[in-house]
Amino acid sequence: MTLHYFDHNATTRVDDEVLDAMLPYFQQEFGNASSRHAYGMTARYAIDKAREQVAAAVGVQPVQVIFTSGGSEANNLFIRGAADSLSAGHIAISAVEHPCVLKPAQTLAQRAAERWTIRCLPVNQAGQVDMTAAREAMTVQKPALVSVMLANNETGVIQDVAAIAGTAHTHGAYVHTDAVQGLGKIPVDFTKLNVHAMTISAHKIYGPKGAAALIIDKRLLLKPLIYGGGHENGLRSGTENVAAIVGFGVACERAVARIAVMAQHVARLREHLEQGLAEMGAVIFGANAERIPNTCYFAIPDMEGDTLVVKLDKAGFAVASGAACSSVNPGQSHVLEAMQVDPLLARCAVRVSLGHTNTLAQVEAFLKTIREIVASLRSISSLSF
Amino acid sequence: MTLHYFDHNATTRVDDEVLDAMLPYFQQEFGNASSRHAYGMTARYAIDKAREQVAAAVGVQPVQVIFTSGGSEANNLFIRGAADSLSAGHIAISAVEHPCVLKPAQTLAQRAAERWTIRCLPVNQAGQVDMTAAREAMTVQKPALVSVMLANNETGVIQDVAAIAGTAHTHGAYVHTDAVQGLGKIPVDFTKLNVHAMTISAHKIYGPKGAAALIIDKRLLLKPLIYGGGHENGLRSGTENVAAIVGFGVACERAVARIAVMAQHVARLREHLEQGLAEMGAVIFGANAERIPNTCYFAIPDMEGDTLVVKLDKAGFAVASGAACSSVNPGQSHVLEAMQVDPLLARCAVRVSLGHTNTLAQVEAFLKTIREIVASLRSISSLSF
Repeated sequence: MTLHYFDHNATTRVDDEVLDAMLPYFQQEFGNASSRHAYGMTARYAIDKAREQVAAAVGVQPVQVIFTSGGSEANNLFIRGAADSLSAGHIAISAVEHPCVLKPAQTLAQRAAERWTIRCLPVNQAGQVDMTAAREAMTVQKPALVSVMLANNETGVIQDVAAIAGTAHTHGAYVHTDAVQGLGKIPVDFTKLNVHAMTISAHKIYGPKGAAALIIDKRLLLKPLIYGGGHENGLRSGTENVAAIVGFGVACERAVARIAVMAQHVARLREHLEQGLAEMGAVIFGANAERIPNTCYFAIPDMEGDTLVVKLDKAGFAVASGAACSSVNPGQSHVLEAMQVDPLLARCAVRVSLGHTNTLAQVEAFLKTIREIVASLRSISSLSF
Repeated sequence: MTLHYFDHNATTRVDDEVLDAMLPYFQQEFGNASSRHAYGMTARYAIDKAREQVAAAVGVQPVQVIFTSGGSEANNLFIRGAADSLSAGHIAISAVEHPCVLKPAQTLAQRAAERWTIRCLPVNQAGQVDMTAAREAMTVQKPALVSVMLANNETGVIQDVAAIAGTAHTHGAYVHTDAVQGLGKIPVDFTKLNVHAMTISAHKIYGPKGAAALIIDKRLLLKPLIYGGGHENGLRSGTENVAAIVGFGVACERAVARIAVMAQHVARLREHLEQGLAEMGAVIFGANAERIPNTCYFAIPDMEGDTLVVKLDKAGFAVASGAACSSVNPGQSHVLEAMQVDPLLARCAVRVSLGHTNTLAQVEAFLKTIREIVASLRSISSLSF
């Protein structure tokens, strides 16, 4: 069966142009970029070019791009790498961070020596960081490290990272943002975000899995997570994944080039989707907040999310019941919990995340299918009483 | 110009069968393995299959395979991950370890708190770990962690890992071996090596860059380097690089299947090469030790290695002047230093590392070329006096 893919916040299909750019680096130009012969120099040149493409996409200099194997590694590199360059203090993160920010922060707080204290910044019912609480945290605890994501992977809600960073800077904090879900969906400008570090990843923007970056400001002191041959300015050792890095570069270029058209397209599809869902009595999480245009996180009361995901999958639609890239707390979204969503309703959460290849016809087919599934589940449910 | 690639210890060309196996996972089956829909399940199944292939290649159960992004990450995961699960003590490593073992060990020794002490195990002039010194280190210092590589990346010299591990076990150490250069060239059996952990990597065995593994014994306590969604049994979070992992699985299967033929083939080529080099007055490093069959690390007195590498590159031969995957101490090999090689001779070091596609004709052409280069350099040198 042809599946309609509605799970672009989990991962995306590699674009043709991206794969075409990658292919030569598996067999023709397969050199190790550290080698001093022609194979090595070709690989090094390809990485340099990709570094320029990635840097241009977020408005920084190439030297600010530290390539990693993925967004999780980049987030861990910031949290652990910055903490290891400082004396233990407070770390402030939002309550809706991805586990790959949340968990390394918790690890800092569990150390035997150099133990850190976590300050969790609460969000309002729309999923936005509570600015009063954030300002208070910055002023009272004066955290040395702050990490607030640009756009949430589940709800798509956008945080006012620049404003939070502004307050944090006053007290000398290093500020990081996980912009993995923002890139390619909204403009992402490192300087305007006013942060010291930012994570972006290839496989969320129609690039390959296996390449991501931590974008850093030169003021940031950072220790590596992976030590060795001194690659990436000594901040990330290990033979570079040349093909994936090349793909990341091209994916960045394309993401920026099509962002306006893409955003308008998926916004139109989402509007249609959410109208149809509202008619079915669905609750849209984060609907009152600014969101990335492709994400719709909804719940139809009494319709369990996991059940819907399985039934939709069988009917040919790939959607998520929560954060796809997490096996932490299965069945329970810490994002919805932080938004004070009733646990019974949270269990009904389903995430649709659209991509540039999705069509209005697919959205209409989806609405038709979900209506049928809901009707069928309701009739079973009424029979069982 | 067609380059003859003689640098297989740096990296290898991806085999056709490996690339064919990988390709569907970029565009057709591009799902995130954590997703619960068909795309996700297909990706999960592919990873499961690769895990079985990797496990079978080294004689372990699939659950013992922890996929990482590369050998450097796997080595760091062992050193830092095992150290973080223990109280600070001694760590013993050989003097010829790769920087991605050496540097994280040094980092343990530079910590403000929980500071470790490094015991460097010396090697003899053939490049083999001095067993008397090793036994003494195990008995006197009783290191909690031991890491000794299976085969050296520069010399190809094989260490008696099982014997060292046997002594270390008596005193309760966790023992690790970096087997990245061994796999595919000599039989690698995790159980026979008698270790708690072992690193292997795809791109050294005609697989892709971006996939490697730390093979672990269930007795080993390990903390993650990268925290997050809890992938890889909680030991390595981050969206799996499905295509690279699939390629790693196939590469492992092929490496084991052809090992006998491959070893015999490259051994024959190396013998021919070393005969020719000896006739030119070359010194072969580690010649008196057991070596992996593909590696020839030599020096022609007064012929600087870097110069030879550049001239050979121009003549169509890709070789290395030292460890290709390191930018640490350029121009100075810590391996040759540990072997007490005269620094002037060490500057002349050139590494040829053969692969299964190299031919006797290529080796003969190489010998002819190097004879010409040497003659030309000697005539310039004699003119200048």
